[in-house]
Amino acid sequence: MKVVILAGGGGTRLFPLSRSWLPKQFLEFDGKRSLLGLTLERAMGIVRPSDLVVVTNPKHRDRVMLELESVGALGAHLVLEPVGRNTASAVALGASYLLNLGVPRGEVILVAPSDHIMGPAGEFVGAVDKACELALRGRWVVFGVRPAGPETGYGYIEVGGPVGPGFLVRSFREKPDVESARAYAEDPRYYWNSGMYCLTLGCLMDQLERHMEDLYRLVSRGYDEFISAFADSPSVSIDRGLAEKSSDGAMVPFNGDWSDIGSWDAIYKWLQKDGDGNVISGDCVALNCEGSLIMGQGRLIAALGLRDMLVVDGGDAILVAPRNESQRVGLLAEKLASLGGRELPELLAGCVNGVSCRSLIRGVGYDVTEVQVKPGGAIDPHHHAKSSESWGVIEGKARVTIGNREMTVLAGDGVWVPVGESCRIENVGDGPLRLVVVRIGHKVFGG
Amino acid sequence: MKVVILAGGGGTRLFPLSRSWLPKQFLEFDGKRSLLGLTLERAMGIVRPSDLVVVTNPKHRDRVMLELESVGALGAHLVLEPVGRNTASAVALGASYLLNLGVPRGEVILVAPSDHIMGPAGEFVGAVDKACELALRGRWVVFGVRPAGPETGYGYIEVGGPVGPGFLVRSFREKPDVESARAYAEDPRYYWNSGMYCLTLGCLMDQLERHMEDLYRLVSRGYDEFISAFADSPSVSIDRGLAEKSSDGAMVPFNGDWSDIGSWDAIYKWLQKDGDGNVISGDCVALNCEGSLIMGQGRLIAALGLRDMLVVDGGDAILVAPRNESQRVGLLAEKLASLGGRELPELLAGCVNGVSCRSLIRGVGYDVTEVQVKPGGAIDPHHHAKSSESWGVIEGKARVTIGNREMTVLAGDGVWVPVGESCRIENVGDGPLRLVVVRIGHKVFGG
Repeated sequence: MKVVILAGGGGTRLFPLSRSWLPKQFLEFDGKRSLLGLTLERAMGIVRPSDLVVVTNPKHRDRVMLELESVGALGAHLVLEPVGRNTASAVALGASYLLNLGVPRGEVILVAPSDHIMGPAGEFVGAVDKACELALRGRWVVFGVRPAGPETGYGYIEVGGPVGPGFLVRSFREKPDVESARAYAEDPRYYWNSGMYCLTLGCLMDQLERHMEDLYRLVSRGYDEFISAFADSPSVSIDRGLAEKSSDGAMVPFNGDWSDIGSWDAIYKWLQKDGDGNVISGDCVALNCEGSLIMGQGRLIAALGLRDMLVVDGGDAILVAPRNESQRVGLLAEKLASLGGRELPELLAGCVNGVSCRSLIRGVGYDVTEVQVKPGGAIDPHHHAKSSESWGVIEGKARVTIGNREMTVLAGDGVWVPVGESCRIENVGDGPLRLVVVRIGHKVFGG
Repeated sequence: MKVVILAGGGGTRLFPLSRSWLPKQFLEFDGKRSLLGLTLERAMGIVRPSDLVVVTNPKHRDRVMLELESVGALGAHLVLEPVGRNTASAVALGASYLLNLGVPRGEVILVAPSDHIMGPAGEFVGAVDKACELALRGRWVVFGVRPAGPETGYGYIEVGGPVGPGFLVRSFREKPDVESARAYAEDPRYYWNSGMYCLTLGCLMDQLERHMEDLYRLVSRGYDEFISAFADSPSVSIDRGLAEKSSDGAMVPFNGDWSDIGSWDAIYKWLQKDGDGNVISGDCVALNCEGSLIMGQGRLIAALGLRDMLVVDGGDAILVAPRNESQRVGLLAEKLASLGGRELPELLAGCVNGVSCRSLIRGVGYDVTEVQVKPGGAIDPHHHAKSSESWGVIEGKARVTIGNREMTVLAGDGVWVPVGESCRIENVGDGPLRLVVVRIGHKVFGG
C-alpha cells in the first residue's frame, strides 16, 4: 500500500494563525506536532516512509521537508504541484507519480488530507485494513465518521446495504442546513465524509476515465507531460468530481474521533478546556471568562467577562469573534479587499532554506519580525534599496556577512545593515538561531 | 479668579491605554488634544495662563509641560506633589501655593479635575459665572450635572431650596445601587457630582479648619513647610473630606454634556459612532459588528460578529471585554498580581526630558519600544549590563554617542549598542525624532 498525503492546501479560515504562506496543515495546536506531522505519524503506523507520497505546493517544499525530517520520514516522496488545482488533480498527480515509478495498477493507495485530526491510532489501522480489503475487490472506499452532532460544516454520506466489512455508498450530501443536519445526525444511514479514500491505482484511473474525462486525458499522457500541463487540470475536489458521480463506492466507518479542524470553533472543541471551559495559551489574564479560546503571543491579552469568544493573537494581526461566528473568518479577506484593495497581512517570507518568519508588528515606516534559522540554514544575501535592517540575535550563533565584512554575532547582540547594503546571515551554532529583525524605511509599510 | 487644575491622578481603569506612567488625563481620544489639554483650553476661556495652577506628580512634570506648551499656556504655574495624596491635599497644596504668592484670601478659585470632558464652552463659562457669584457670598460651590441616566459609577448631590443662581446642597450620595440611581435620575433634586468646585481661598481655609483639622494644621505652616511635610497629609478626596461634612455648600447646575470618562464604556458613549453604532480607529477590518469600540494600534484587528464589545490594542497589551464589563478593568491588575505576583506591563519610561515611550511588544529575551524625542530633547547616557539595544531612526535626525564615539544617524538607519556600552541619543533635527528600539538580552523579559 502507498499513502498519498495531500498537503498543498491554502486557506485563511484559521486566520490570523494560518496565512497563504502558512496554511492549516503546518500549524501546531498541541505545541509539538503540526497537523501534517500528525498525519505523517499516522501513515507511518501503516507503511514505511518510502511508501509515502506527499503532494504539496513548491512554496511549501522546505516546510514539508522539515516536517518529514522531524518525524523521521525523509525517505518519503515529495511531489510538487506546479499550481494549486484542488484535490482530484492532486490525487491524480500522486497516482501518476506512482505509476511512473513502476508501481502496478493493482496497488492500493490511501488518500489522506493532512489538515485533519483523528484518533486513536488502533481504530485508524483497523479501518484502513477494512478499506484495503474492499479496495482490492475493486471498490473505491471512503471513510465515514458517525456524526457527533448536527454539524453543518461537513459533507454527509448516505449508505445503503453492507458490502464486505463496509457499506455501499448511496449518495453524498454537501454541507446541509441545520434541519437536514439534525435529521442526518439521528439517522444511522448517514456519516460524515472524512475526505479520506482508499482504492487501487487502477480503480482510480478507471473512475477518472468514466467521470472526469478532461483530467483522465491529461493523466494518461504520463507523469512528465501531466506536470507540464498541470495548469490545464480541472480545479475540483475528488468528492465532487469523482465520488459523487460514481456508483462503485463503499464506505468504511472510522469509529474514533475525527475533525477537519475547519474553524477556530472546531479547534476549541478539540483542545483541553479548564474548569470554566476556557482554552487559554500564551500570556493572558482572564477574569470571569467562560467557554472562550484565548491564544496569546508576545503581548498580554487582558480578557474580561468573555462568553464563548475567540481571541487569537497572530503577531501582526489579532482576531476577535464569538466562537459561533468562526465559520466566517474566511470572509475577512474579502472584506479587507473591498475596504481598500488590501489583503490579509502575509508573513514576511514563510519557510525557505531552513528559515521561518513570523511578523510581529508593523508601524508607519517600520516592521518587526521574529526569524528562526535551523542549524546550517542561512538567509541568502539580499539587500533592500530603500530600507535598512537591524538583526538582533536572541538565541544561537550567527555568521553575518555585510558586503565583504564577515563577523560572528552571538546571542544578546546584533548588527545594523545600512540601506542598499547586501547581507547574509548563517546559523553557525548547534541549536536554532533566533533573531528579531527591524526594517526601517519609507518603502516598508504605510510610510 | 484662579484655576487649580488637578493633574496628578494615576489609575488603570483605562488599561491598556492608561498606565501608571500615562494616566487618563494624558490620553488623546480625538487624536488632537489630551483630556488635560482640553481642560487647559476650557480654563483659558475664563482666565489668563498665569492664573492657572496645575498640581501634578513629579514624574508627569515633563508631560504636563508639553501639554502647557501645546495650548500656549507656558505661563501657567506648576505645583509638584511630593507624593500622591488624593484631591483634598492637592487642592490645599494649590491654595497654599497661591497664598504664598500673595494672592488674597478673597480670591475665588475654580478647582477642576483634568480627566473629565464637558461642553459646550458657553455653558461652562455661564456656570462658572454663577458659581463665582455664590463663592463671593462665602459659599463653597460644587457643579452639578443633570443625570442623563441611572449611572451607578457617579456620586450624586441632593439639593434643597434655591440660593442665588444655584441651590443649597443637602447631601452627597456616593456611587449608588441601580435602584437608587434610577430614583435619583428621575428626581429633579438630584444631580451628578462633577468634582468641580468654586470657592474663595479664605472659604477653603475656613472649611479645612472646621472639617479637616489634620490637613489644616499642615497648610497653616506655610507653603514650604507644607511641601516638606506633604507625606503626612491625609489621603482623602475633597468630596469626602470636606464637602460631605459641611453645610455651607451650594450647587450650580452645569447644563451641558459631562463625563468623567471613568471607563471604556464612557469613552464609547462619548465618541462619534458609525451607522452600526461602532467606534473604530486604527487598522481594523470589522464584519457584522455592532455597538463596539475597536481601537487598533500597529497591527490589524480582525473583528467578526461583535456585539457591544471593547477591543483596545495598547501595544504590549490588548483588552477584550463586553462594554458593560468595562467598570471592572481596574481589577485586572489585582488578578494579574494574584496569578504570579506580576504587574500590568508598564510603559518603558513615560515622558522625561522630552522623551516619550510606548512599548510595542515583548517576547522571550527581547522587547520592542517606539520612542519619540522632541527637538532638543535627549535620552540620557545609560547602559544595560545584560542587554544590548538597537536604535533605528524612523523619522528625524539623531546624534548618537556610544562610549566616546559620536555619530549622526538619519531616518532609515540605526545603530547597535553592545552589551555594557553606554549610549546617549539626542534629537538634533528640527522636527520630532522617532525611534524604534529593540532590547535583547536574558534580563529583558521572560528569558
